[in-house]
Amino acid sequence: MIDESIKLGLHVKIGEYVIIEKNVVIGDNVVIGHHAVIKEGTIIGNHVIISDHSVLGQFPVSNKKMARKPPSQLSPLVIGNSARIGSQCVIFRGTTIHDGVLVGDAAAIRENVTVGKNSIIGRNVMVENNTFIGEHVTVQTSSYVTAFMIIEDDVFIGPCLSSSNDKYMSAGNGELIGPILKRGSKIGNNVSLLPGVTIGENAVVGAGAVVTKNVKPNEVVIGNPARPMRQ
Amino acid sequence: MIDESIKLGLHVKIGEYVIIEKNVVIGDNVVIGHHAVIKEGTIIGNHVIISDHSVLGQFPVSNKKMARKPPSQLSPLVIGNSARIGSQCVIFRGTTIHDGVLVGDAAAIRENVTVGKNSIIGRNVMVENNTFIGEHVTVQTSSYVTAFMIIEDDVFIGPCLSSSNDKYMSAGNGELIGPILKRGSKIGNNVSLLPGVTIGENAVVGAGAVVTKNVKPNEVVIGNPARPMRQ
Amino acid sequence: MIDESIKLGLHVKIGEYVIIEKNVVIGDNVVIGHHAVIKEGTIIGNHVIISDHSVLGQFPVSNKKMARKPPSQLSPLVIGNSARIGSQCVIFRGTTIHDGVLVGDAAAIRENVTVGKNSIIGRNVMVENNTFIGEHVTVQTSSYVTAFMIIEDDVFIGPCLSSSNDKYMSAGNGELIGPILKRGSKIGNNVSLLPGVTIGENAVVGAGAVVTKNVKPNEVVIGNPARPMRQ
Repeated sequence: MIDESIKLGLHVKIGEYVIIEKNVVIGDNVVIGHHAVIKEGTIIGNHVIISDHSVLGQFPVSNKKMARKPPSQLSPLVIGNSARIGSQCVIFRGTTIHDGVLVGDAAAIRENVTVGKNSIIGRNVMVENNTFIGEHVTVQTSSYVTAFMIIEDDVFIGPCLSSSNDKYMSAGNGELIGPILKRGSKIGNNVSLLPGVTIGENAVVGAGAVVTKNVKPNEVVIGNPARPMRQ
Repeated sequence: MIDESIKLGLHVKIGEYVIIEKNVVIGDNVVIGHHAVIKEGTIIGNHVIISDHSVLGQFPVSNKKMARKPPSQLSPLVIGNSARIGSQCVIFRGTTIHDGVLVGDAAAIRENVTVGKNSIIGRNVMVENNTFIGEHVTVQTSSYVTAFMIIEDDVFIGPCLSSSNDKYMSAGNGELIGPILKRGSKIGNNVSLLPGVTIGENAVVGAGAVVTKNVKPNEVVIGNPARPMRQ
Repeated sequence: MIDESIKLGLHVKIGEYVIIEKNVVIGDNVVIGHHAVIKEGTIIGNHVIISDHSVLGQFPVSNKKMARKPPSQLSPLVIGNSARIGSQCVIFRGTTIHDGVLVGDAAAIRENVTVGKNSIIGRNVMVENNTFIGEHVTVQTSSYVTAFMIIEDDVFIGPCLSSSNDKYMSAGNGELIGPILKRGSKIGNNVSLLPGVTIGENAVVGAGAVVTKNVKPNEVVIGNPARPMRQ
């Protein structure tokens, strides 16, 4: 089970029925839960906890219908120091999880994503490919972060966000433009973001709002479609 | 694999690659699926079925950014008689699942939750910590039940509920007030509940409604924001 | 682990800690990931990839409260040639996945479902029982497809769809009528569909819309409740 190409740090605790593939690097004081699968080449820092049944370093797949094939080459998944990865997570190759990040149970993070220091990716959150998430960001349970989204530092996203990036619902030329959430903005629960909208710095989007246009810095919007709240 | 501190009932059927940790108690006629992980101290009643890949008795974790640290001590997870736990569920310590409850596949239930007799927690439902769920309650697929929520007996929650408990989206003093769903109330699919709203007895909330204020007993509300339906 | 009732094709690659139950049929050039569970009788075509931790061929369960008991007999799960099944999926007996289908990670598909050729069932999508999904359909991440729904060929469903089929929220006679999505219709992200609505051919439902009535062919609807968009 432990191939000689694997670099194992000191005081690593490995659960039962764990699979560690070739060329994996594991730092000191790491805990790996039962039934975890650490795929080829994954790099794990010090003091990381990975809970049961998680799959780290997965390679994307595709079928005939997919317009955009996944990249054939991806850098290894990197998990920073003191990160915590929940149970039953799937995290892909090509992604970097920075120090101190918490990834909740059953969350999935696809290829070429960056998650900045100390951010929280909640339980059952789905993060699609090529998304940038800054530092000290919170993404609460069951939120959906679409591909090519930019989430700056200190953003708060409540539960059940729904975001999108394809204005033509796969009938256009295939250009994808993810929403941009500027620093310190706050998104209530069950908000819908349309492709390419920008939420300004420290703006607030109320629960259940459907955001079809850009929101100015410090503005508070509510409703379907979202409009500035009368003060 | 079977430690001598484990108490095993009669006619227990255990799948392959199962992990049963110390001090677990398992009743008679229990079926445990393949790759299940039963964590230290978990107490399982008679005639319980636990499907493949589920994790029972998990301890919460945290990172630096989390304002509220999880409790350092939690009572064992208790699963009542004849409960059915699906595949790929995660259920935490400190929680009690009463007799006859059905928990669907991929559902997660956090610490200090009570689920009353014969209730149904649907597939992919996320139940956060310190929530009380009564008897004969239905929570349908992919619903999100936030922390500190109270769901009384005979409540029906359709698919994809989104609920929240933090009025200030983590910018306030941290007080969390979950919604209260009174006995017999019915919630349509994809409803958004704001922090602290009360849905009165036998009230009905229409699909897609965004509930920003309390709903009176027997009232029917629809829309964004939710308003009483003209009869 | 490999019972003699199992029929294994040529060049099959099986991961570690995999369970293959009785009477399973596996075609040529199939790859089965680590910790996968292939339940009794499942039939897998050629060139299929099944990723880690998935459960194929699961039998439904019920508790006392469930009005509709699952069927006691179900035909085996059939997975067509060149299908790709992600990690941590659960797919039930009685279902047919046709050639070239992609099922994303953590998706669940219940009993008596058909998924037509080359369709995509996204990550974390939940498909309930007795639903028909045509060919070349896309259902994006975290969408919820209720029971008894009909989705014709070439339909596009964005992320986080919420659909329902019970007008009386379990207080009626139990008749379930799923929505019907006609050929080529397009559904934006976080749309709510009420029981029994029909979305006409090539119609478009905007993000966040709550569809309470039928939508005509080629019509574009938005809002809560959904109304035709002024052109």
